[in-house]
Amino acid sequence: MKLYTSARAPNPRRVAMFAAEKGIVLDEQQVDLNGGGHRTPDFLARNPLGRVPVLELDDGRTLSETRAICTWLEGVHPEPNLMGVDFAERAFIEMADRRMELHLFAPIAHCVRHTHPGLAVLEPQQFADFGTAQGAVMRDTARWLDGVLATQPYVAGERFTIADITAFCALEFARGLMRFRPGQEGFAHLQAWRDRMAERPTARAGM
Amino acid sequence: MKLYTSARAPNPRRVAMFAAEKGIVLDEQQVDLNGGGHRTPDFLARNPLGRVPVLELDDGRTLSETRAICTWLEGVHPEPNLMGVDFAERAFIEMADRRMELHLFAPIAHCVRHTHPGLAVLEPQQFADFGTAQGAVMRDTARWLDGVLATQPYVAGERFTIADITAFCALEFARGLMRFRPGQEGFAHLQAWRDRMAERPTARAGM
Repeated sequence: MKLYTSARAPNPRRVAMFAAEKGIVLDEQQVDLNGGGHRTPDFLARNPLGRVPVLELDDGRTLSETRAICTWLEGVHPEPNLMGVDFAERAFIEMADRRMELHLFAPIAHCVRHTHPGLAVLEPQQFADFGTAQGAVMRDTARWLDGVLATQPYVAGERFTIADITAFCALEFARGLMRFRPGQEGFAHLQAWRDRMAERPTARAGM
Repeated sequence: MKLYTSARAPNPRRVAMFAAEKGIVLDEQQVDLNGGGHRTPDFLARNPLGRVPVLELDDGRTLSETRAICTWLEGVHPEPNLMGVDFAERAFIEMADRRMELHLFAPIAHCVRHTHPGLAVLEPQQFADFGTAQGAVMRDTARWLDGVLATQPYVAGERFTIADITAFCALEFARGLMRFRPGQEGFAHLQAWRDRMAERPTARAGM
């Protein structure tokens, strides 16, 4: 298996941390996003939508979309389980993961894309007012998540799962490009959880 | 099981069509979104993020997030399979489903939310320029999808899956609120696929 990826980009980081938690070592090929490496014919043949990461399987098929790649990795390397051991647990972990993806990661990504000068090269057009408003949406989710983490140790409940990876990579992206520090905005439980995640040996995977 | 849902809303429609394809009859309770039914303490106790649909299980637990609810329904009622029979197929169908969700459904939802006068009541603020640009993003995906459907009968390949449901419900939302007709914009294969989907006995579920 070969992973087409891009260091420090948040979605590739999710896959890198997921693989590292399982002890999977992937053959990596870096794609230069700022240089348009995701828009070359060669790359578009692997993912016509032009996004990293992409996992190329040993039979030559290519799999894209972060969470779908994780589903594959969980299948070939089931331990430690990160996505649920049966359909019932899978459904509840998926709920938690999607909440992180749609209500935390997505508004962070929108905010960064539409407000950060460094992202102008990757965006056809930036809508700064929209981006700023998305920062407030992210903080609403952070406030709720802070309350959740006051009562349970991990995003999906009692154990570490893919939902922690999604939330951590999202918050680290916000830390870098939005200078967002949960503790400074009154979210002490979220900050404490983030600091615990940052101590995991896998926390720097994909950086 | 009881489904808290809202007729004609696109995410509830996805779950309704998914359940109908499996022959599952759910006890439904309508939530009045325009009247703020998703912001009552009673509803927020079931989903603190205030979104429909929500599936209340027989043991009292509540499951939200459209695709997570589908994972649960697939588990309790495996036939006909709509999400993959093993991890490998699950991963590839998830890739297709996420492409529909993130690159088709999401830009449609943004476009409608930020440009349609009827949605002003549900949005804190509308950013019309952003919404208009998202309409163009959706059309880029539609153009690519039209090419895919020129070579295979269904969104994920040779058989009907959850990815068809996501794409169909997204396009029907765009048909109603963006007056989007694939055939009128040169996407003949996408239009033909849409018309085949509209003939399924389940196509009006959730309406």
